[in-house]
Amino acid sequence: MTAAGVQTDELIDIIRARLYTAVVSDVLDRNGYLDQAMDARIRPIDPGMRVVGRAHTVLSVDIYERPENPYVNEIAAIDAVTSGSCVVASTNQSTRTCYWGELLSTATRARGGTGTVIDGYTRDALAIIEMGFPVFSTGFKPVDSSARSVVVDFNCPIECGGVKVRPGDVIFGDFDGLVVIPIEILPDVVAEATHKVESENLTRDMLRDGHLLREVYDKYGVL
Amino acid sequence: MTAAGVQTDELIDIIRARLYTAVVSDVLDRNGYLDQAMDARIRPIDPGMRVVGRAHTVLSVDIYERPENPYVNEIAAIDAVTSGSCVVASTNQSTRTCYWGELLSTATRARGGTGTVIDGYTRDALAIIEMGFPVFSTGFKPVDSSARSVVVDFNCPIECGGVKVRPGDVIFGDFDGLVVIPIEILPDVVAEATHKVESENLTRDMLRDGHLLREVYDKYGVL
Amino acid sequence: MTAAGVQTDELIDIIRARLYTAVVSDVLDRNGYLDQAMDARIRPIDPGMRVVGRAHTVLSVDIYERPENPYVNEIAAIDAVTSGSCVVASTNQSTRTCYWGELLSTATRARGGTGTVIDGYTRDALAIIEMGFPVFSTGFKPVDSSARSVVVDFNCPIECGGVKVRPGDVIFGDFDGLVVIPIEILPDVVAEATHKVESENLTRDMLRDGHLLREVYDKYGVL
Amino acid sequence: MTAAGVQTDELIDIIRARLYTAVVSDVLDRNGYLDQAMDARIRPIDPGMRVVGRAHTVLSVDIYERPENPYVNEIAAIDAVTSGSCVVASTNQSTRTCYWGELLSTATRARGGTGTVIDGYTRDALAIIEMGFPVFSTGFKPVDSSARSVVVDFNCPIECGGVKVRPGDVIFGDFDGLVVIPIEILPDVVAEATHKVESENLTRDMLRDGHLLREVYDKYGVL
Amino acid sequence: MTAAGVQTDELIDIIRARLYTAVVSDVLDRNGYLDQAMDARIRPIDPGMRVVGRAHTVLSVDIYERPENPYVNEIAAIDAVTSGSCVVASTNQSTRTCYWGELLSTATRARGGTGTVIDGYTRDALAIIEMGFPVFSTGFKPVDSSARSVVVDFNCPIECGGVKVRPGDVIFGDFDGLVVIPIEILPDVVAEATHKVESENLTRDMLRDGHLLREVYDKYGVL
Amino acid sequence: MTAAGVQTDELIDIIRARLYTAVVSDVLDRNGYLDQAMDARIRPIDPGMRVVGRAHTVLSVDIYERPENPYVNEIAAIDAVTSGSCVVASTNQSTRTCYWGELLSTATRARGGTGTVIDGYTRDALAIIEMGFPVFSTGFKPVDSSARSVVVDFNCPIECGGVKVRPGDVIFGDFDGLVVIPIEILPDVVAEATHKVESENLTRDMLRDGHLLREVYDKYGVL
Repeated sequence: MTAAGVQTDELIDIIRARLYTAVVSDVLDRNGYLDQAMDARIRPIDPGMRVVGRAHTVLSVDIYERPENPYVNEIAAIDAVTSGSCVVASTNQSTRTCYWGELLSTATRARGGTGTVIDGYTRDALAIIEMGFPVFSTGFKPVDSSARSVVVDFNCPIECGGVKVRPGDVIFGDFDGLVVIPIEILPDVVAEATHKVESENLTRDMLRDGHLLREVYDKYGVL
Repeated sequence: MTAAGVQTDELIDIIRARLYTAVVSDVLDRNGYLDQAMDARIRPIDPGMRVVGRAHTVLSVDIYERPENPYVNEIAAIDAVTSGSCVVASTNQSTRTCYWGELLSTATRARGGTGTVIDGYTRDALAIIEMGFPVFSTGFKPVDSSARSVVVDFNCPIECGGVKVRPGDVIFGDFDGLVVIPIEILPDVVAEATHKVESENLTRDMLRDGHLLREVYDKYGVL
Repeated sequence: MTAAGVQTDELIDIIRARLYTAVVSDVLDRNGYLDQAMDARIRPIDPGMRVVGRAHTVLSVDIYERPENPYVNEIAAIDAVTSGSCVVASTNQSTRTCYWGELLSTATRARGGTGTVIDGYTRDALAIIEMGFPVFSTGFKPVDSSARSVVVDFNCPIECGGVKVRPGDVIFGDFDGLVVIPIEILPDVVAEATHKVESENLTRDMLRDGHLLREVYDKYGVL
Repeated sequence: MTAAGVQTDELIDIIRARLYTAVVSDVLDRNGYLDQAMDARIRPIDPGMRVVGRAHTVLSVDIYERPENPYVNEIAAIDAVTSGSCVVASTNQSTRTCYWGELLSTATRARGGTGTVIDGYTRDALAIIEMGFPVFSTGFKPVDSSARSVVVDFNCPIECGGVKVRPGDVIFGDFDGLVVIPIEILPDVVAEATHKVESENLTRDMLRDGHLLREVYDKYGVL
Repeated sequence: MTAAGVQTDELIDIIRARLYTAVVSDVLDRNGYLDQAMDARIRPIDPGMRVVGRAHTVLSVDIYERPENPYVNEIAAIDAVTSGSCVVASTNQSTRTCYWGELLSTATRARGGTGTVIDGYTRDALAIIEMGFPVFSTGFKPVDSSARSVVVDFNCPIECGGVKVRPGDVIFGDFDGLVVIPIEILPDVVAEATHKVESENLTRDMLRDGHLLREVYDKYGVL
Repeated sequence: MTAAGVQTDELIDIIRARLYTAVVSDVLDRNGYLDQAMDARIRPIDPGMRVVGRAHTVLSVDIYERPENPYVNEIAAIDAVTSGSCVVASTNQSTRTCYWGELLSTATRARGGTGTVIDGYTRDALAIIEMGFPVFSTGFKPVDSSARSVVVDFNCPIECGGVKVRPGDVIFGDFDGLVVIPIEILPDVVAEATHKVESENLTRDMLRDGHLLREVYDKYGVL
């Protein structure tokens, strides 16, 4: 692993241990990155799930006839998952297919993948929750993909939840939603966000004591 | 009860005890039945709910004035529920009305009904959850139906969650969604699905051991 | 506080202790108020949450450039919350912004506010759930409002979840949804609803004993 | 015909000859009737079409099996059309069925009907345009209704384009859309609207001469 | 060309000269083919356009980075058009891309193609209207496809406007919409539809003479 | 007027006389500006309408009570229109209000405005068409804005049809849709587009002669 790769892993550890999506989103805003939060329709399949990782992107398309080898790219895409990465999948918002499930979750985890974010459906949801493998999806459908969609590419730029995602960008999700951190600003974002967490603690305490928002904002300048 | 009816009940028992919707959907696909999974917008009102039963269909329509006897067909429809059946209700996707609730759940259970699937809203949801009566709906609204909709027919073909449902077809739902099993292929579907569950267990174990999806698929031929 | 204000608080206490939204909705229907239930897309962020209070309305609008003082009206709106009121917020159904969160919840509670209903998103949801502060929203997004929306008015008539809400109307929400009780009919609604709760208990018992809906409805005249 | 009926016909003649929907909508607003304009999705099938008439309402519901006598109520509804009335039809926004077409247009016109407004689709559109019979619809589909929907009632209150319509209310439509004039305020609305048309002519002339909106509004008080 | 091919061309000529989509849809219904009319969102780009032809299907998928050779399959798909065929294209309902335009229309016509039906957008619409080349689309966008979508397959089963289309099925469109005639029932459909056109003429005449729908339907049995 | 202003006007004249939106969109793509075409739901109210001009932006918000001075900002916004500018208006996609109409069109034209693009409805559409004043809108509604929306700002950045528009950017619309040309790249865009128009003419001629797309693309490299 390169020095940059190591540093990314350390920064990802800080995100996992100390940050939440709202504070990261605020820091992205301040740096002029205003379109980094995914649409609200992508939700964790279990309330407590959190995910952080380097984006391992996958792109599928709806089809209308089972191909001879329906899974060939899907298998290649998941077998290419590397440690510390997070599967980020676009289905072009299909409501017909579902290609995520327990087996792909098991295979992804076995390769060191940290979770999955899919702009589409998952199945086997209770089994995945029991595994403790974080999956964020737009819903659930019990169907298989083989006669409904095929993976056409992976490790390519995609759009997921309305946000452009490039392979290697950092994905961070919790109960409030998902943000995409462009890899080139990761160190700055983590540093600023860590600092902002502390200011917010002071603000919260002052509000709990009954001070007006006006006073608190005048003092700390954050909401 | 006829011999066929007895066999249906036994097959339903097997579904309840040993199957899940994803494996049943896969078997329906293999038999060329590709449109049997309901739309993802119909969800169990509690995560652990499962439902299996013969479809007892109900069709309602939005109206704009309270009729003299608003409940007459609604009452008849529920009083006609038979043991082992599951209420499957179309509202033509109304977002104005809500006719399911605690009282209809209580009445349905008293007749031996095993649950309710409604392409529309329910109310009294916490009370129904407490009863442990499985209800799958598109959401919740606290309103009554009397000035908003009437039941126009029951035990008629309907469309629920985008799937055609005939009275007597078998409905099966769990956290992943809902599938409709045409009654004439029920024995085959249950047999094949029971067998596929075993293959999937082998696949899962091999993936957990770290094998690539490629190897596993080449060996067992299932995903 | 005026005599009317005192009476309102007492009626709100009765709602909180003894009523649920479905029975209140039925009574509103009977009095000819058929459009008082909010759209089903506004949900409690935690299943057990209930809210009752006098509407403290807030209206925001999407903008596309961070203003010099983005929070000025937002701060004024929340600092104006009075004891026993419930924040009811329209965002004109924005899917870009999110201005509710932990700090505003903390500030609202410190002023005596009983909860928040927002036709839009919230963030900091797990922290708010931990506070036990009832929030009903259309979903979650981790973004801040400052470059996305501003509060343009408060204590003005708004539309929230498809229902007209005037400042001072009583908002009541539970797992089944939300109803708006026009302040001028509050005493009648509470009286009738309290009475209807008792009839429903009798109906439910009779149904549990296996009686047909037809018999029960003929005897008690309620569903 | 009663005296009131005669007067209605005369007022309808004035609307047809001298008014347009925008000015009628403004007058409805001033009288506190703010929800009388139908949703923008209902459009004239030909740009120049205008319709005025007393509402002859029809309500249909989607079904999923061809009934023995699919057209019985549809036939009765159209055969009941009286001279000067306008068919106003709700399909509960069905996108499956289409029951309006050339034959019903021909039959309606033969009974003296002045046009049709349907919150649903029409077919035979070019033939209807050639007839010069005004139809406003949400679009076009070449299908028949017989296996897709049935008329369940007519001359009943309905909702069309989001507006409550009672039998006998006056419907008025042109290229800008459709308004529903409650019958009890028809004389006042026509009188005020006739007067407002004149003010607007003055305003328009002054604007054409290059005066600022500010000056024109200060002088005439209308926009 | 095979004998069957010749016959298809002759039947297509009859459709073009003497039929309209509504009568064809009715005949499909009677034969139990109830899902052959495309969704109403696909419209002719000019009111008078009609199209008939054997389906030449094309399937595209949204992408998020310009590939090295973006047009390779798109070019191959259009160069493969044969005389008498109609391009039928699925974009999985993309609202981002647009790959139809004047040049593809020119190329298609040069190969003998009779028109294009696209479940997506077109551009160069006025030039295409001037060419008199029939195009049915869901709307218009001035963008090119090269960085937005690629053709992934052609002459494969697709879904267009909600209807399954197999290569070689016959597409027929006019102002009322589009129907798909499965190739194996084409002769029967054309024969029955030709006959039904005559009955409808009689019905229409009788209605014009002022007879009630009830009388006309009792006599001819068609609406 | 500044030298830059003069140059802008000359470039706008070239756009008006010699370009169309599709070729401008292609050039924007090549320069890496991929999000400059507005959503397809904004359409010219008459097929032949074209508009070019410097964006004069207006932002309105839905309200739910008629303010004391509902038109104050609306009047100011239109009275501030300058010669050669085009009104570009965001309503946050309101389907309740309508503030554009004949009087504002007349006033805008009197100030030298070249047209209006509104992400919302217009009224008085036939009168505006007769004036020959280009308006692009999402539809039509006969209502007035005074109790439904107010202008909150103008000459501010907005989003219209999904595209960011800054005051002074150049708007260009025709039957295919609308593109936003950032002012800083206007000279390059016009130069490149003028050149591309010529290549396309050659391509079209070759296709008309029956050459395959493959040959034509290999020769000219454009589609």
